Amino acid sequence: MGEKTFVLAPDSFKESMTAKEVCIAMEKGLKKVYPSANYIHVPMADGGEGTVQSLVDASGGQIYEKEVMGPLGGTVTAKYGILGDGKTAAIEMASASGIAYVTKETKNPLITTTYGTGELILECLNKGIKRIIIGIGGSATNDGGTGMAEALGARFLDEQGHVLPRGGGSLGKLATVDASSLDPRLQEVEMIVACDVTNPLCGETGASRVFGPQKGATPEMIEQLDAALAHYAEIVKEQLHKDVRDIPGAGAAGGLGAGLLIFTNAVLQRGIEIVIKYTELKEKLASADLVFTGEGGMDFQTKFGKTPYGVAKAAKEEGKKVIAIAGYIGEGIETLYGEGIDAIIGIVPGAAEIEKLLSEGPQNVERTCENIARILKFNE
Amino acid sequence: MGEKTFVLAPDSFKESMTAKEVCIAMEKGLKKVYPSANYIHVPMADGGEGTVQSLVDASGGQIYEKEVMGPLGGTVTAKYGILGDGKTAAIEMASASGIAYVTKETKNPLITTTYGTGELILECLNKGIKRIIIGIGGSATNDGGTGMAEALGARFLDEQGHVLPRGGGSLGKLATVDASSLDPRLQEVEMIVACDVTNPLCGETGASRVFGPQKGATPEMIEQLDAALAHYAEIVKEQLHKDVRDIPGAGAAGGLGAGLLIFTNAVLQRGIEIVIKYTELKEKLASADLVFTGEGGMDFQTKFGKTPYGVAKAAKEEGKKVIAIAGYIGEGIETLYGEGIDAIIGIVPGAAEIEKLLSEGPQNVERTCENIARILKFNE
Repeated sequence: MGEKTFVLAPDSFKESMTAKEVCIAMEKGLKKVYPSANYIHVPMADGGEGTVQSLVDASGGQIYEKEVMGPLGGTVTAKYGILGDGKTAAIEMASASGIAYVTKETKNPLITTTYGTGELILECLNKGIKRIIIGIGGSATNDGGTGMAEALGARFLDEQGHVLPRGGGSLGKLATVDASSLDPRLQEVEMIVACDVTNPLCGETGASRVFGPQKGATPEMIEQLDAALAHYAEIVKEQLHKDVRDIPGAGAAGGLGAGLLIFTNAVLQRGIEIVIKYTELKEKLASADLVFTGEGGMDFQTKFGKTPYGVAKAAKEEGKKVIAIAGYIGEGIETLYGEGIDAIIGIVPGAAEIEKLLSEGPQNVERTCENIARILKFNE
Repeated sequence: MGEKTFVLAPDSFKESMTAKEVCIAMEKGLKKVYPSANYIHVPMADGGEGTVQSLVDASGGQIYEKEVMGPLGGTVTAKYGILGDGKTAAIEMASASGIAYVTKETKNPLITTTYGTGELILECLNKGIKRIIIGIGGSATNDGGTGMAEALGARFLDEQGHVLPRGGGSLGKLATVDASSLDPRLQEVEMIVACDVTNPLCGETGASRVFGPQKGATPEMIEQLDAALAHYAEIVKEQLHKDVRDIPGAGAAGGLGAGLLIFTNAVLQRGIEIVIKYTELKEKLASADLVFTGEGGMDFQTKFGKTPYGVAKAAKEEGKKVIAIAGYIGEGIETLYGEGIDAIIGIVPGAAEIEKLLSEGPQNVERTCENIARILKFNE
C-alpha cells in the first residue's frame, strides 16, 4: 500500500485559529501516527469572515491593506487579498463597511455607507484584477450599495440635481441615477458575490426590515429605509432599465447585493461553492484517502451552507470519507451523518473557560487528530 | 466475520455517572453503528469511591444499607454490597467513617473513630460472608483502626484498666490491648484491603503527618497523633506479637491499614487489581474485539493505579486494543499510549459550565462512542 493522502479542509475556528492554523495543527497530530503521509492543506471558509484569508492561503496569494472610508465616513484600514493567480482578488465588504466599525452609540443605518467597499473594488481595478470575489456579510449599511457605486463613479442626485448625502436615509429623495461616469473597467471584471441569503431588496423580507434592527434601525427608521430602497429600485428600473428589487439576495448587506447587480457584472453564489471552486478543493479531493474538515462550532445549522457541510458534499461526490472536528458540538449533528460527514469529534479537553479553550485551540486540534489517527490505524 | 464483541470497562465519571451508567451510554452510542455486536459491561473502579457499586454491578450483586456509628459518634447510614456469589462483601470505609461526614468546624482527628467501619464488618460476619473486600480511602479518622477493632470485640485500656475514649488522640495512654473477645469469625474471613498508598503507620511519611492535615490536624495534633500511633504499635508488638508499624500501607486511612493487619487476616492489594479480579475482567476480555474504558478525568496520574490504566494493562496482556474516553483530558496523556491505551477521546461538546457537563454526561458518552464507532467502521 502506498502512503496515505489526507486532505485537510477546515474552516477557521473563530477567535481561536485561522483555517490555515487549523490545517497545521491537524497535520501535526496526524503526522505522529502517519509520519510519511501526504498532507494537502485546503484552508476553507464559507463566504463569511475568513474568506479572504482562506482564498489567499489556499492559492498562495497575498493580503494587502488599503485605507478607505469607513461606514460612518472616517478612515479605516481594510484588508483584501490577491490570489495566487495574480488576476483574482478577494474582498470582504465588512473589512471596509462592517458592523465592527460602529458602536452601540454610533450605529445609524440612515447614514452608514458602502463607499469604502467601492474604494476596495476601485483599488482592484487599478491593480488590473480581472475577477473579484466579494463576501458581503456583516455590513453596517443599508444604502443599497449606492456608496459603493459612488466610489466607482456613479452619482445619486435629488430633484435639484444636487448630490445626495451618503446613506440609505436620503435615497427617498433620489431623482436621478447618473451612471455615465461609472468606471468602464467594471464591465471587464467578473464579479462573484458570495451571498447566502435570499432576501429581496424591500418589503416584508427585505433588507431594512430583516437586517435593519441589528444595524440600529428603530421602527420609524425601518419604514423610512424600506420606502427609500423601494424608491431607489423604481428609479433604477426607469432610468437604467434594471429590475433588481425582487432578485433573491438583492437585500443582502443592506442592499449591496442590489447595488452590485445594478452597477457590476455581479453573479450571486453561495459562499461555500465559491470557496470550493477557487480553492480547487474538488481537484485536491481526487487523490485523498480521507478528508478532515471542521469548524469552531457545528450543529443543525451546519447544513445551511457552512464549510464542513460543503466539504462533505464535495467529498461524497468523490466517494471520500470525511471526519469533522469542532470546538463546539450542538444540537442536531446526527442530521449531518447522512450528508457525507462520517464522524464528528469534539476537541475540547474538559470544562474550561472559553478564553482558555480559544487560546489552546491548536494543541487541542493536534491531540484530537492524533487520537483519531490512532483509531484509524486499528484496522490496518 | 462474526459479530464483534465490545468489552466496556469504564470507571465512574465522578459526580456525573456511575460506571454502570457509563457502560449503558457507551453501548447506546456504539449500538447505533454496531447494532448486532455483543456488549459485555464491566463497570470498574480502582478501590476508591464507587468500588462497592462497581463490584456489585459487575457481579450482579446487591447494595445494602446499615445504620452505624459515624466518625464523630452519631449515627450515619452506610452502604455496603454483597456480590453475586453471595459470599463476598464489599465495603468502603468512607461510607461509615469518611471525611464527608465531618465539616470544616467539626473535623478533629483526635476523636474521629472507625467504629462504624467495624460495625459494617460485623454485619458481614453476621450474614455469613466469607470474603470482605474493603476500600479504605477517604477516611476522616486517625485512630489506627482501633474503633473498627472495638466494634468487633477488642478493648483498648489505660493503666487503670479503663476503656479509652475513642479516637487516635487517646492512644498515647494505651496500656493494654485486649483481643481476647475479638469476634472469632474474623479468623475465617478473607480480608482483602484495597490500598494504593505505601505509607507506614508513623514517622515522616506516616498517617498523621501526611494525611492528618486534610483531616483537620494542627501541627500540635500531628505530633500528638504520630506519637500515639507509635505507642499503639509498640504495645501491639509487645502484647499481640504483631509488628505492623513499617508495613507499607499500615498508615493508610489514619492507620486503619495497620488495624486491619493487626486484627484481621488482611492482605493489602492495589485497588484496581482487586477490582479486575472480582469483576473477572480478564476472563471477559478474552472474547473482546475491542475494549472501551474511561474515567471522569485522565492525565499523567492515570498511570498511578487508576482504572483506565489497569484495564489497559490487562487488555494489553490479552493483545486487545483499548479506546479510552474522558470528561477531562489533562497533561501527560501521551505517556499512556505506550501502556496499552491506544486512543483517548474527550466527550465534552464545548465550553460549558461544569454542572451542565456533569448532568449531560450520558448523552456526551453516547455521542462520542457513536462517532468513534463510525470511524472504526471506515476500514471494514
